Amino acid sequence: MNAVHNVMEAAVKDLLDKQWENLLISCHCETCRLDVYALSLNRLKPHYVRAQSGNMYAKANLMTTQARATILTAITESAKVVSAYPHH
Amino acid sequence: MNAVHNVMEAAVKDLLDKQWENLLISCHCETCRLDVYALSLNRLKPHYVRAQSGNMYAKANLMTTQARATILTAITESAKVVSAYPHH
Repeated sequence: MNAVHNVMEAAVKDLLDKQWENLLISCHCETCRLDVYALSLNRLKPHYVRAQSGNMYAKANLMTTQARATILTAITESAKVVSAYPHH
Repeated sequence: MNAVHNVMEAAVKDLLDKQWENLLISCHCETCRLDVYALSLNRLKPHYVRAQSGNMYAKANLMTTQARATILTAITESAKVVSAYPHH
């Protein structure tokens, strides 16, 4: 039953990797990074697909300028929350 | 970066396993089952947590009667969609 996955995970990870160093956040440790990652995914509509089908199509949809702007907004907002309430 | 996961996945899988045989659906094959699983997860608000933290608390939240009813509704609605538009 693990043959489905949320393609949003890879899209958020990709943008977070690229923007992590530039992100306004009080702490750049791995725990805070994972908190921003999880919080961003909770703010975005999930996009689960079966492993064998629709994967490429779904990924392409998440590479539009609009989709990337939406994801970046979620990351920025999540970084604010994690800065205000760090887990350590 | 795979140290986060959506606890909703296990909650939906659990209920889907229990209700699969009783579910009103045109086909009970594995492909249709995965489609219902993915579609249900897309209809429900994701609940990502870091692997090390909040896991038990988040799982407990998904075991309330209200949460299970919400998940079952998503499964039932998804089964209707998959019945109407099967992938095979």
